[in-house]
Amino acid sequence: MPNHENFPSLNESYASSFDKGDLPLPPSKHLTVVTCMDARVEPASQLGINLGEANVIRNAGGSAKDALRSIVISQRLLGTREIAVFHHTGCGMLTFTNESIRDKVKSEAPGDSTVAQAVDDIDFLAFSQVEKSVKDDVNFLKGNPLVLKDTELTGWIYDVATGKVKRVA
Amino acid sequence: MPNHENFPSLNESYASSFDKGDLPLPPSKHLTVVTCMDARVEPASQLGINLGEANVIRNAGGSAKDALRSIVISQRLLGTREIAVFHHTGCGMLTFTNESIRDKVKSEAPGDSTVAQAVDDIDFLAFSQVEKSVKDDVNFLKGNPLVLKDTELTGWIYDVATGKVKRVA
Repeated sequence: MPNHENFPSLNESYASSFDKGDLPLPPSKHLTVVTCMDARVEPASQLGINLGEANVIRNAGGSAKDALRSIVISQRLLGTREIAVFHHTGCGMLTFTNESIRDKVKSEAPGDSTVAQAVDDIDFLAFSQVEKSVKDDVNFLKGNPLVLKDTELTGWIYDVATGKVKRVA
Repeated sequence: MPNHENFPSLNESYASSFDKGDLPLPPSKHLTVVTCMDARVEPASQLGINLGEANVIRNAGGSAKDALRSIVISQRLLGTREIAVFHHTGCGMLTFTNESIRDKVKSEAPGDSTVAQAVDDIDFLAFSQVEKSVKDDVNFLKGNPLVLKDTELTGWIYDVATGKVKRVA
């Protein structure tokens, strides 16, 4: 059974006790979190973020570069002034390269030049060290002309085995 | 006080009762959720997703186009086969255009050609109707050569005033 068949009943349980219908659009804590799409990451509970408090951007690896469009909107239109970059141990981004994922996708559609072209056009932004990836992303944001100069920037690693975060930038 | 000063103590409370340290990297429900970074959206509780079950991609608007890199990684390397696109009422993406956000950013750095060039290079992917944006994103995924043909695709709108979701695609 597809998961979506359960969404209505799972959501009904959430909505039946929902009492936060008047929260404003701008995040009340002026905070943006950039983190990974990983299934073991759940920033709300792991960093103690409540509904309405923070913009949460998630993508493969928690890439700040990939998140730039969203960060500009968060800062300029929604008033956030702090960004926490939050990567994690055991990340899937440590397990491949542009070349290996492109080869895999092409091998799954042999001879399909449309697929080959489309996958060659993507930089998958893999990395080989988690701590370095966090520091690189914080530095990317520090140096980017579109990120506001007074932004409070920090970088963190979440340990999927212990549930603990530590600050590395 | 910056929010990050509270992360260690808030996380300590989470980690002290953490008992899911052995979850595997691939999402157990083979599910990817694409949703908005909005502070009022919290897919885990709103769709009843538990730790380890789903990749969760979030960006400004919940754009599937912006999420493509992450979706390819999720499907090809982590084995997901279902994508739920999940936008919401009252989205910030309804309030601006490429032209208006570019003008705003430029007016905040008058005469700075680096900023002007950088912001002109970004397509901010704003939209004017939530239901149409969900349907457009589901159609984008249906037609994209990199998205697996057997993917179970659905589209949803979350109502920030009531906490309820409804399926629209």
